[in-house]
Amino acid sequence: MEQNRQLCSQLVGKQEEDTFSILIASDCHLGYKEKDPIRGHDSLVTFEEVFEIAKEHEVDFVLLGGDLFHENKPSRATLHGCIEILRKYCLGDKPCQVEFLSDQSVNFWSSSFPVINYEDPNYNISTPVFTIHGNHDDPSGSKNLSAIDLLSSSGLVNYFGKTSSVDEISISPLLMQKGKSKLAVYGLGSVRDERLHRLFASEKITMLKPKMDTDNWFNIMVVHQNRVKHGEKNYIPEEFLSDFLDLVIWGHEHESLITPEWNPKTNFFVCQPGSTVATSLTEGEAKRKHVAILKVFNKTFKVEEIPLNTVRPFYIDELCLQETGISCDERHEQEIVSYVKKKIESMISKAEAEHSGSTRQPTEPLIRLKVDYSGGYIPFNSLRFGQQFVGRVANPKDIVHFYKKRTRREITDDEEMESIENAELPISILERTVKIENIITELLANDSSYQMKFLSEKAIGDAVRIFVDKEENDIIEELVHHSLKKMQNLLKKNQGSTDLQLDQQVEIYKETVFGNEDMRKAIEGAQIKRRHRGDYDDEKDFSDSDEDIVKPSTSANPENNGRGNRSRDRARGQTRGHRNSRTPSRGRGRGTAITSSGCVFTRKPATATASSTLKSKKSEVINLVDEDDSDDPFEIDRSKRSRKA
Amino acid sequence: MEQNRQLCSQLVGKQEEDTFSILIASDCHLGYKEKDPIRGHDSLVTFEEVFEIAKEHEVDFVLLGGDLFHENKPSRATLHGCIEILRKYCLGDKPCQVEFLSDQSVNFWSSSFPVINYEDPNYNISTPVFTIHGNHDDPSGSKNLSAIDLLSSSGLVNYFGKTSSVDEISISPLLMQKGKSKLAVYGLGSVRDERLHRLFASEKITMLKPKMDTDNWFNIMVVHQNRVKHGEKNYIPEEFLSDFLDLVIWGHEHESLITPEWNPKTNFFVCQPGSTVATSLTEGEAKRKHVAILKVFNKTFKVEEIPLNTVRPFYIDELCLQETGISCDERHEQEIVSYVKKKIESMISKAEAEHSGSTRQPTEPLIRLKVDYSGGYIPFNSLRFGQQFVGRVANPKDIVHFYKKRTRREITDDEEMESIENAELPISILERTVKIENIITELLANDSSYQMKFLSEKAIGDAVRIFVDKEENDIIEELVHHSLKKMQNLLKKNQGSTDLQLDQQVEIYKETVFGNEDMRKAIEGAQIKRRHRGDYDDEKDFSDSDEDIVKPSTSANPENNGRGNRSRDRARGQTRGHRNSRTPSRGRGRGTAITSSGCVFTRKPATATASSTLKSKKSEVINLVDEDDSDDPFEIDRSKRSRKA
Repeated sequence: MEQNRQLCSQLVGKQEEDTFSILIASDCHLGYKEKDPIRGHDSLVTFEEVFEIAKEHEVDFVLLGGDLFHENKPSRATLHGCIEILRKYCLGDKPCQVEFLSDQSVNFWSSSFPVINYEDPNYNISTPVFTIHGNHDDPSGSKNLSAIDLLSSSGLVNYFGKTSSVDEISISPLLMQKGKSKLAVYGLGSVRDERLHRLFASEKITMLKPKMDTDNWFNIMVVHQNRVKHGEKNYIPEEFLSDFLDLVIWGHEHESLITPEWNPKTNFFVCQPGSTVATSLTEGEAKRKHVAILKVFNKTFKVEEIPLNTVRPFYIDELCLQETGISCDERHEQEIVSYVKKKIESMISKAEAEHSGSTRQPTEPLIRLKVDYSGGYIPFNSLRFGQQFVGRVANPKDIVHFYKKRTRREITDDEEMESIENAELPISILERTVKIENIITELLANDSSYQMKFLSEKAIGDAVRIFVDKEENDIIEELVHHSLKKMQNLLKKNQGSTDLQLDQQVEIYKETVFGNEDMRKAIEGAQIKRRHRGDYDDEKDFSDSDEDIVKPSTSANPENNGRGNRSRDRARGQTRGHRNSRTPSRGRGRGTAITSSGCVFTRKPATATASSTLKSKKSEVINLVDEDDSDDPFEIDRSKRSRKA
Repeated sequence: MEQNRQLCSQLVGKQEEDTFSILIASDCHLGYKEKDPIRGHDSLVTFEEVFEIAKEHEVDFVLLGGDLFHENKPSRATLHGCIEILRKYCLGDKPCQVEFLSDQSVNFWSSSFPVINYEDPNYNISTPVFTIHGNHDDPSGSKNLSAIDLLSSSGLVNYFGKTSSVDEISISPLLMQKGKSKLAVYGLGSVRDERLHRLFASEKITMLKPKMDTDNWFNIMVVHQNRVKHGEKNYIPEEFLSDFLDLVIWGHEHESLITPEWNPKTNFFVCQPGSTVATSLTEGEAKRKHVAILKVFNKTFKVEEIPLNTVRPFYIDELCLQETGISCDERHEQEIVSYVKKKIESMISKAEAEHSGSTRQPTEPLIRLKVDYSGGYIPFNSLRFGQQFVGRVANPKDIVHFYKKRTRREITDDEEMESIENAELPISILERTVKIENIITELLANDSSYQMKFLSEKAIGDAVRIFVDKEENDIIEELVHHSLKKMQNLLKKNQGSTDLQLDQQVEIYKETVFGNEDMRKAIEGAQIKRRHRGDYDDEKDFSDSDEDIVKPSTSANPENNGRGNRSRDRARGQTRGHRNSRTPSRGRGRGTAITSSGCVFTRKPATATASSTLKSKKSEVINLVDEDDSDDPFEIDRSKRSRKA
């Protein structure tokens, strides 16, 4: 493989018509700190630089690793700024040389316009963008839409890797061809790590491989998950991913480790672009930011790393007060302040000396000094301290971060996770976090009037998290509604019982059927269920019925009856184990799927495809084995099980 | 004129290549009651019907009168639904036969892509949409963006009629030609009625007329204001509008009065499309909803009214309890309830009988019975009463509306306004409104610790209104920041005064320089000022300085340096009376303006144009008189002064 890369570097250039040229970037976090008068424009400035690079290198397309937006609900200004940049750089006359081969109605199943933007005759696209969602811009709300869906329905990006079920995930690649080279891009938008970890461990992740020319595809996978271990299940080990992959583009992690790293266990490379803007003041974010130009020729590839020049300079350093020789006596506070000040001045000088000189690179750097105050030192007021650096430093309010070194001991996974997460938080935030948690716990523990008869504490916690993170104002109401309905159904079945019996039943029910797991799924699946009725057959009362309501039919193709019906059908095929029906109902919706022009596979009458493999595992495997010599273009690669499992 | 319409009806059809065909609609209020499980889809369903009609009639373009969205910040689902319909119906191969003649960089001055979408080579537009904003979707936030700007920057609509100043408005028409017919469309997005009334009265509204062929244009104006009088200044009298107009499209008023009404005083017709969805349960909204196909041939026009078939049926009626003969004694409550129920049943029956039978028209009607309970009757619980109609009526919660007839007496204008506004509100809301007002007033009056030293009550009131209506979370903070800065500057100038003297100064200052008017302007102009620095020369400290910050340049044309600079220049030309500089600086930005292909006017070197006339009245008039024989394509028509003024 290493050899291949060498080979590629010789070939690329001579065989341009056979070589994919792809700009790789990730975690642009548009809108990050947009209200900060100093840093407000940083994310959009660098986003534009990314597209300037794409244009300059005349790439075939741009591939993004998620978290295009920082907020789940980006502000109008941020969304508008993003649209402006995309319209400016992605539209144009240059024809895209990449032939798109896979079934677009499968790749873009959730869209009303399941067509790749550069093949839509109504748009002139010179630089197509492909992106998955990250954890910051994941789908939410009543229609399970991401902010990226707005860009996608406007024809500005191609949004892939959206999953349709919370219980099983089948990943059907984007298949492309340029000259003789063939590229398969597997996308998986951000899924909560714990859930994805569980799905991998229980072999509920399916990777579909093209049967035709199976071994000649260059296989890329784009993911947006924790790569660094945060507790036992709070990350995705690289070994979970299929070893037929050639290259994994790993989003979410902000440190730029863009030089592909070879993983000898899995036989693939991992390229971690890192973010294009620092969203936390940590070591990883202080490293130089990059995008990459990825060239793929047959089964070989080459990565050209391109440093970004508009990123705000960021310097981070550490200081241990005990090592300064200054006494921890509070009378020496001024001495400590002076010492710290001197240290920061030297960091600022370094920033000035190393500034690129480019007018587009901000001059006020981010400065972070981590001060270990263990040994009896008293932290001074870092907010007031920072005021002297206003106008010289971009983050005067949080230059100094006080922390205490942990003493080394065996720590459990939970603690480890907490320690990693908390390590980045300043004292004040930690205190606040604890307070909010305390409030909830105390309320529930001490005051009987607040005790929850129906809801589990965990479920409420999850709902509150979604409420805060995604600004989904209805989620708590929905949860309560769902819980009450379930409980009401239970009680109806048990009419005539005594109060005591009922109480016991409620408790048992709460513990078992209606436990944390059920509630978690109810929350996770809420959006999907609202669209795909029938996911939970016994829970049809979960959402307000809207099936009788006249809805606008907004599909691209009037004959095609739109996304609504097709995706609903598909979702019906994804119920947990097909409680009500195990009859395999294959190829539903396929006949009406919009096929791409020039698509090799979809011209064949495909009867079993990606959508059919989305059904319950049992029937899916049988179907595919049965018809191995059929026209089904895909083979299945069951993702590896956790070695620990 | 009436004769002309007759003439037109004979001509249209024979001269199709010379006849504009325009779909007129207004107040689509997308997203209205989107969370209502019954009515949630109504607005989008009818919006789609509007575009089906446009497509069926193969109109040249769609012209909307504002309030495309119901919420200033439409939900993602609503925005997405709107995008889907626009993409489905407006994109396509049919070439638009209308030649666009005016300077697009003037018409669409606020856009980074000041080009009409069907002339952008990167989009294939078959049915262009032109829209102004209404009061529901007006620009807001730090970049003064409307939700419509998202559609405009995505190439889906052409958004015009955005004003750049709060003190003067100059309206430069969209000029179009189809065959021999010439059309000028003047757009004015919603402005607060009181302010617009004042601007008209003080002759601060300028209408620019094309000099070439001045009398051969068919002149349409699109406005979104109160047409019905709500108090002396809380509406725009038709007489305010220029009499060279041929047809006014009047948005905002929801009653469909789409048949053009001749106004003999002004010599123009007024066409009031009305809303496409009922957003209040009033008589006007209960009338049949329409769109119109407007045909324009030379100076003649014809309107074909097209009833909308997907609108939810809505029946409204009145009942006076005194006329029922039932005693007002509370023991007869059940009798009254039965009487009311019978009445509503008959309304439902009527709705059933009159249903169009179309599957796309909802079957559950809106029902409103206004019950006059004067004469000592006690209103029953209308919420509980409505429960029996769940599943049969779309609005079970507010079917019955209790009110008392006003006794006739002389009422002042203020009272009149209040009575008209309150007439539609149910009791509970009125009570709540009063309560909130009381809280503020009581706080300020009774508790000295809440007394405002710097801020006027009115200014706070306005800020709170914007905070609530537009969800502009920063507006109050901005107001306070602005006030404090001004006060600090005052105090700095007066160092050495005694406390008493200072107190007096503060009071005087608050009353005069810093009075309500100033504060109102500060609030109204906040968004504009944040973009166009220098509007208020003595208030540069109002917003955070962002001039030194590296910003993304996102203009369509790299040589053109984008909207940011041009609009900033123009805004500088719009300061109130040019306090610091009266030098006329004409034609700025004109040389770099993007001109439309086939544009007659812009091919001439235009030195004084719409942008130059936007300057203070004095210099503007002189310039234009001086150069009346120049290439300036526009004549000025100063809008008529209020007859009462």
